[in-house]
Amino acid sequence: MNELIKLNIDPLIQLALQEDITSEDITTNAVIAAGVKAEVDLIAKEAGIIAGLAVYQRVFELLDETATVEKFVSDGDTVKPGDLLAIVAADARTLLTGERTALNYLQRMSGIATHTQKVAKQLIGTRSRLLDTRKTTPNMRIFEKYAVTIGGGYNHRYNLSDGILIKDNHINAAGGVKEAIAATKKYAPFVRKIEVEVENLEMLKEALEAGADIIMLDNMDVDTMKAAIKIVAGRAVTECSGNITQERLKELGDIGVDFISCGALTHSSPILDLSMKNLRIL
Amino acid sequence: MNELIKLNIDPLIQLALQEDITSEDITTNAVIAAGVKAEVDLIAKEAGIIAGLAVYQRVFELLDETATVEKFVSDGDTVKPGDLLAIVAADARTLLTGERTALNYLQRMSGIATHTQKVAKQLIGTRSRLLDTRKTTPNMRIFEKYAVTIGGGYNHRYNLSDGILIKDNHINAAGGVKEAIAATKKYAPFVRKIEVEVENLEMLKEALEAGADIIMLDNMDVDTMKAAIKIVAGRAVTECSGNITQERLKELGDIGVDFISCGALTHSSPILDLSMKNLRIL
Amino acid sequence: MNELIKLNIDPLIQLALQEDITSEDITTNAVIAAGVKAEVDLIAKEAGIIAGLAVYQRVFELLDETATVEKFVSDGDTVKPGDLLAIVAADARTLLTGERTALNYLQRMSGIATHTQKVAKQLIGTRSRLLDTRKTTPNMRIFEKYAVTIGGGYNHRYNLSDGILIKDNHINAAGGVKEAIAATKKYAPFVRKIEVEVENLEMLKEALEAGADIIMLDNMDVDTMKAAIKIVAGRAVTECSGNITQERLKELGDIGVDFISCGALTHSSPILDLSMKNLRIL
Amino acid sequence: MNELIKLNIDPLIQLALQEDITSEDITTNAVIAAGVKAEVDLIAKEAGIIAGLAVYQRVFELLDETATVEKFVSDGDTVKPGDLLAIVAADARTLLTGERTALNYLQRMSGIATHTQKVAKQLIGTRSRLLDTRKTTPNMRIFEKYAVTIGGGYNHRYNLSDGILIKDNHINAAGGVKEAIAATKKYAPFVRKIEVEVENLEMLKEALEAGADIIMLDNMDVDTMKAAIKIVAGRAVTECSGNITQERLKELGDIGVDFISCGALTHSSPILDLSMKNLRIL
Amino acid sequence: MNELIKLNIDPLIQLALQEDITSEDITTNAVIAAGVKAEVDLIAKEAGIIAGLAVYQRVFELLDETATVEKFVSDGDTVKPGDLLAIVAADARTLLTGERTALNYLQRMSGIATHTQKVAKQLIGTRSRLLDTRKTTPNMRIFEKYAVTIGGGYNHRYNLSDGILIKDNHINAAGGVKEAIAATKKYAPFVRKIEVEVENLEMLKEALEAGADIIMLDNMDVDTMKAAIKIVAGRAVTECSGNITQERLKELGDIGVDFISCGALTHSSPILDLSMKNLRIL
Amino acid sequence: MNELIKLNIDPLIQLALQEDITSEDITTNAVIAAGVKAEVDLIAKEAGIIAGLAVYQRVFELLDETATVEKFVSDGDTVKPGDLLAIVAADARTLLTGERTALNYLQRMSGIATHTQKVAKQLIGTRSRLLDTRKTTPNMRIFEKYAVTIGGGYNHRYNLSDGILIKDNHINAAGGVKEAIAATKKYAPFVRKIEVEVENLEMLKEALEAGADIIMLDNMDVDTMKAAIKIVAGRAVTECSGNITQERLKELGDIGVDFISCGALTHSSPILDLSMKNLRIL
Repeated sequence: MNELIKLNIDPLIQLALQEDITSEDITTNAVIAAGVKAEVDLIAKEAGIIAGLAVYQRVFELLDETATVEKFVSDGDTVKPGDLLAIVAADARTLLTGERTALNYLQRMSGIATHTQKVAKQLIGTRSRLLDTRKTTPNMRIFEKYAVTIGGGYNHRYNLSDGILIKDNHINAAGGVKEAIAATKKYAPFVRKIEVEVENLEMLKEALEAGADIIMLDNMDVDTMKAAIKIVAGRAVTECSGNITQERLKELGDIGVDFISCGALTHSSPILDLSMKNLRIL
Repeated sequence: MNELIKLNIDPLIQLALQEDITSEDITTNAVIAAGVKAEVDLIAKEAGIIAGLAVYQRVFELLDETATVEKFVSDGDTVKPGDLLAIVAADARTLLTGERTALNYLQRMSGIATHTQKVAKQLIGTRSRLLDTRKTTPNMRIFEKYAVTIGGGYNHRYNLSDGILIKDNHINAAGGVKEAIAATKKYAPFVRKIEVEVENLEMLKEALEAGADIIMLDNMDVDTMKAAIKIVAGRAVTECSGNITQERLKELGDIGVDFISCGALTHSSPILDLSMKNLRIL
Repeated sequence: MNELIKLNIDPLIQLALQEDITSEDITTNAVIAAGVKAEVDLIAKEAGIIAGLAVYQRVFELLDETATVEKFVSDGDTVKPGDLLAIVAADARTLLTGERTALNYLQRMSGIATHTQKVAKQLIGTRSRLLDTRKTTPNMRIFEKYAVTIGGGYNHRYNLSDGILIKDNHINAAGGVKEAIAATKKYAPFVRKIEVEVENLEMLKEALEAGADIIMLDNMDVDTMKAAIKIVAGRAVTECSGNITQERLKELGDIGVDFISCGALTHSSPILDLSMKNLRIL
Repeated sequence: MNELIKLNIDPLIQLALQEDITSEDITTNAVIAAGVKAEVDLIAKEAGIIAGLAVYQRVFELLDETATVEKFVSDGDTVKPGDLLAIVAADARTLLTGERTALNYLQRMSGIATHTQKVAKQLIGTRSRLLDTRKTTPNMRIFEKYAVTIGGGYNHRYNLSDGILIKDNHINAAGGVKEAIAATKKYAPFVRKIEVEVENLEMLKEALEAGADIIMLDNMDVDTMKAAIKIVAGRAVTECSGNITQERLKELGDIGVDFISCGALTHSSPILDLSMKNLRIL
Repeated sequence: MNELIKLNIDPLIQLALQEDITSEDITTNAVIAAGVKAEVDLIAKEAGIIAGLAVYQRVFELLDETATVEKFVSDGDTVKPGDLLAIVAADARTLLTGERTALNYLQRMSGIATHTQKVAKQLIGTRSRLLDTRKTTPNMRIFEKYAVTIGGGYNHRYNLSDGILIKDNHINAAGGVKEAIAATKKYAPFVRKIEVEVENLEMLKEALEAGADIIMLDNMDVDTMKAAIKIVAGRAVTECSGNITQERLKELGDIGVDFISCGALTHSSPILDLSMKNLRIL
Repeated sequence: MNELIKLNIDPLIQLALQEDITSEDITTNAVIAAGVKAEVDLIAKEAGIIAGLAVYQRVFELLDETATVEKFVSDGDTVKPGDLLAIVAADARTLLTGERTALNYLQRMSGIATHTQKVAKQLIGTRSRLLDTRKTTPNMRIFEKYAVTIGGGYNHRYNLSDGILIKDNHINAAGGVKEAIAATKKYAPFVRKIEVEVENLEMLKEALEAGADIIMLDNMDVDTMKAAIKIVAGRAVTECSGNITQERLKELGDIGVDFISCGALTHSSPILDLSMKNLRIL
């Protein structure tokens, strides 16, 4: 994640800081003198997986170039309540002013990583891998998709421009599965794989014949899915989606589908509770 | 929310659309001709409270000035699975290209409203009102705080510049509750109320004497809180916070605290599931 | 002011520099070679109060990261004609290219501080404190409100989002003082104080009864104002406004009003004349 | 000014509105319902020259596309206290939310036009024309330079990139007047005129010989200036500058200098007092 | 291209207009009154293919919302010298102010389409299709890649984030072709095809075994390329690149390579000469 | 060019990098570990003139603050195929991620410098100097005009706001050459020179009488141009333009026109081929 901080992440953090600070942090500036150096502890209040330390650090650096973060864990590490994760040293005002924005990022990213790991664990021993979706929080995608990978998930396409996914509405508009696939083969850059969402075995066969690279089995029952995978027989990658409950997960894994996608990883994971404590003037 | 669409919300939606569309929606543009008008249904897949219809609509308008949304519900209305919430009419490509971003906003805002209402209901019959916090998703605060009000909650300060909240680190740095309050009274614009977070009754008394307008009772047990409210005796507004569980909520309401703040409303509410179906070329 | 430089002030200075430099400073680049280090003096040409040295310095830093400013005075210091205020060292081209923008900020901010101090001095010995307003120059508010505090004034609300001020048009629309206050109590975050502008004693009484925190006495004559303050009797903070002339100031101070607001501090203060002289190639 | 509204002025107004509105106008939104149409009067409270009506109007349009402004005066018209200048019709909330920003622009621009006209009048009957400078308020130059022309003044160069003005520091760095002029002739686009600031008659002669197009006579006494203009004898355009007092103006005009530049037009003109009154719900 | 105008193209056109207009078009505003409607002809001065009419039109709309363009040709049409391509009607000032920016876009895009068509024609009758590259002009990619498709070429990946292309430096860093392919299969979203650049038949075989989807044959002579395509035998898509001269093109086409990529299409196509003539005040 | 990097060039490079990197460089990040330092060679593949090394360097610095570029040539130097121009050292990922954007700038700028020098050489020994125009690539003007000067050309006006150029449409709208010149003299800042495009000797005489500073001889045959220059007789600067072919150039130079402008320098120069080779992990 480090390489992208300056290019693609700084503008978003900057915007988030401006959301939290219109003019100044009046409480902090009232009680703490300017130019005082301090440090503060980052502590876990819940058990989970940490993700986003580089983003957390960048929040403070964008307020104070001299800010430093001594880290005792890395992204992907498991933490338990009370663990000291890092010590941030910076201008005392910066520490208090940046605290909420830094935690809002880190807590959300860690929450997603933690939840993703829980789900991914249920697929251990199966051929299936866990995928995220485009159901991310607006202006948080780069952070949330990264957090999914830290939790052991895999990324589906990043956005509408870099992957083809033909859905029901596209098929209807094109006049059929075959026509839709032909249209995308003609239109899209040849470096794109073509994925088609199918609702039954008829559509599945049509998609395979038309040369789909990836087949998304949408809202099928387990038996239909089994039949589908048999039909595909390795001629395409398979993905299943659609309100995957915890219980169904293992079952799906056993069927042999290649990927299982789950929007809830990014849209409904609760945060991981963390806090900044013990501010010490240096 | 309408009045702010053009000023404060358009830039964020624009950014979210650019996050989802680097160059173009290649699937849609491959299969659907340019310049074709269509309409599509917005349907509830879960029961809950709707919030954010103006934002949902604005996503389509920013892609196609002629887009219109016929709404059958309003923000705050309760919906049940299968309800037709609205019909969106626009260029067919716009409908498919804007779908995900529009739903990502609407689902998250409706999820927060739905969850807020559930929590707020437990306080009915008490004097306590439910408050949000600054624990919002970065670059989503204006949307999330609005959703809280739709769900029946109330907003705490918007950000660090428009409210004073003296916390433990401020008190330590200032050398005491009294000193911290005096410093903010001197520094901050006189239109600000002064809120102080206290951890025990000693601090509470000191805060009251120093003229705090609002007292936040932080992580106190119920008995201490009762004692605290007795001491305050109407001389200040009271707020309690700190990992408020569903069970404790009613109990706290009965004690007579004025406000109960709950970060989870904005940071951990699951989304409300909605979908866009039945695209019809016009 | 330092803590905010990077977050809220840099973008405005950047914009101001781009306003003054479309492509390059053609005069300077024609006569001065690249890569030559130089220094130049900042000198007062008038007596007054200095405000904005951090902004002045930042202009040069944004053009040349190695720029340094050795300061012989601080914000709030009184200067007299001929005083050497600072020595700026940087790339010679940067010194000439940034000069005008840096001075335009510093001269305006120092002009406001100087004028504010003159007005504030007339209130010495009274209970009244001098307030600014929202009548600031567009895109200069953060600089101008800071300059007011350096001159000994106090800040009113920062903007429309962080303070409630019910004026005549609001009262008319709401159907009365009482109704307007009730509406804001219900709508606005509870951390906001409620200020009401009243034109006569009837409205004043109504506002007090309805629980206004601050009463603005608008365009009243001195006798009415005296009566008003008697009626308020400490139950609310009082502010008076409306074309306050220098002569009336002392008189108003004697009456016992808490705050006197004055738009002219920010909208009509003349600048403080400063100049950069004696460029020396190092 | 109309043609530039969308390109160069909208972004600055947008920024100014965001400076005044972080989230929403809480007072207005509390007391006035959404979707109510209203109108309000723009009234002069002082005598002066109006400048900036298109900017004033644009503020409301950027908040509400349906806003209209019926104007009874035009830029350049003289107004007296009590005059009804325009009626603005828009969403009632928009009228109150945009009021301050719209007036901050219009009052400042009209103040500059009014003051410029007062100064320019003293030059009537002479060959001299009044010029502005680059001593404008940061991020206000496009508005302030326009206001100067409305008041009867003329614009000097817009910024550092579009005009050559060789000053003392440039001459020193170049090693002399001749060398500096030669350097700019070689470096700058040939469409630029070359202006040189001279402090005495020796420098003047050198500048003329080297082919300066414009001579700025800096801080000279009247007799020296007379001699200078005799020496120039039409071979270059002449400009004088340097703390031009009202008294000296006429005297300078009589000498026959072509242009007199005056920084105070833009940096120290007081505003023209205007107000918005009589909001009427339609 | 229409659907993206508002989202991804407007910001770039806006920036280009600001590059050409710092304050105003002084010539036009000096000689043409405000508020005069006019129309002007867009005429071809050279034979070629037109591309970019929607962008051309958008330039005028961004200056004047009422601007209209009556088009007599469409993107992809062949034009000859003297052809009337369109009539633009707008505010007379807008027509002159926007002319250069509008033509700079349209001429460049049409130049690329024209040149692409010339090259693509040489491949008619072969299985090879012509591809563009990422060698585009900075901040012009969306325009230039579109122009390539209008000229009959195909687009390679859009940018570094949406396609995998393993080059020599990647292979060296990874320790071999096999290792590099394995690393990307593990790291990249599964919707990406994997392309590998190979310099000889050894690398080619290794790439095929490791499961490359696309093989780029880099700087090979014709005989090696023939051998390569025989080895591939349909197991991967083939692309050849590297200073493809006009002469070699047909020869390459005959060999049976799937794609031939050519950076010159976007980085070195001369413009197509067009002009705007016969301004008529309406 | 260095002095402007931070102010006017950084935002454009940033935008160009974002055009090429939506989320991350997936190929590079898959095969190269984070935090590895490396260096790579910049090598010429064609003979030509180098221009834009500071821009090239800045691309890497914006991705990695520690990037350094050891240069073996300077802007304006002639290079031949195989020459080692520079060694870039940075994070290995940065080197590969920034390569294309850095080269896209440097190749285009060097191409323009190379082509400009070829054209300018044909004017050696004549009084004529070679000029660029505003026919630049959108959002590339600052780079392209700089490259022209490195190739030995001169810059015409930068944009519509900083130079007056009265063309046929202006003359028609104003009602004649004399009227157009009078209008611009009245309207435009006095620091602007007035240039008029004339098509015949009648217009030329009118322009001279009206006081034009510069005469552009548009599309005249050589004999008319000779007559024109005789008529001007040094009373104005002369420029000729209009599809200047290589053959006509010398002929025009001999006639004695002061400037010859050529749009092709910026709109149709092919790039100079350069490459980055031999990445070495340090």
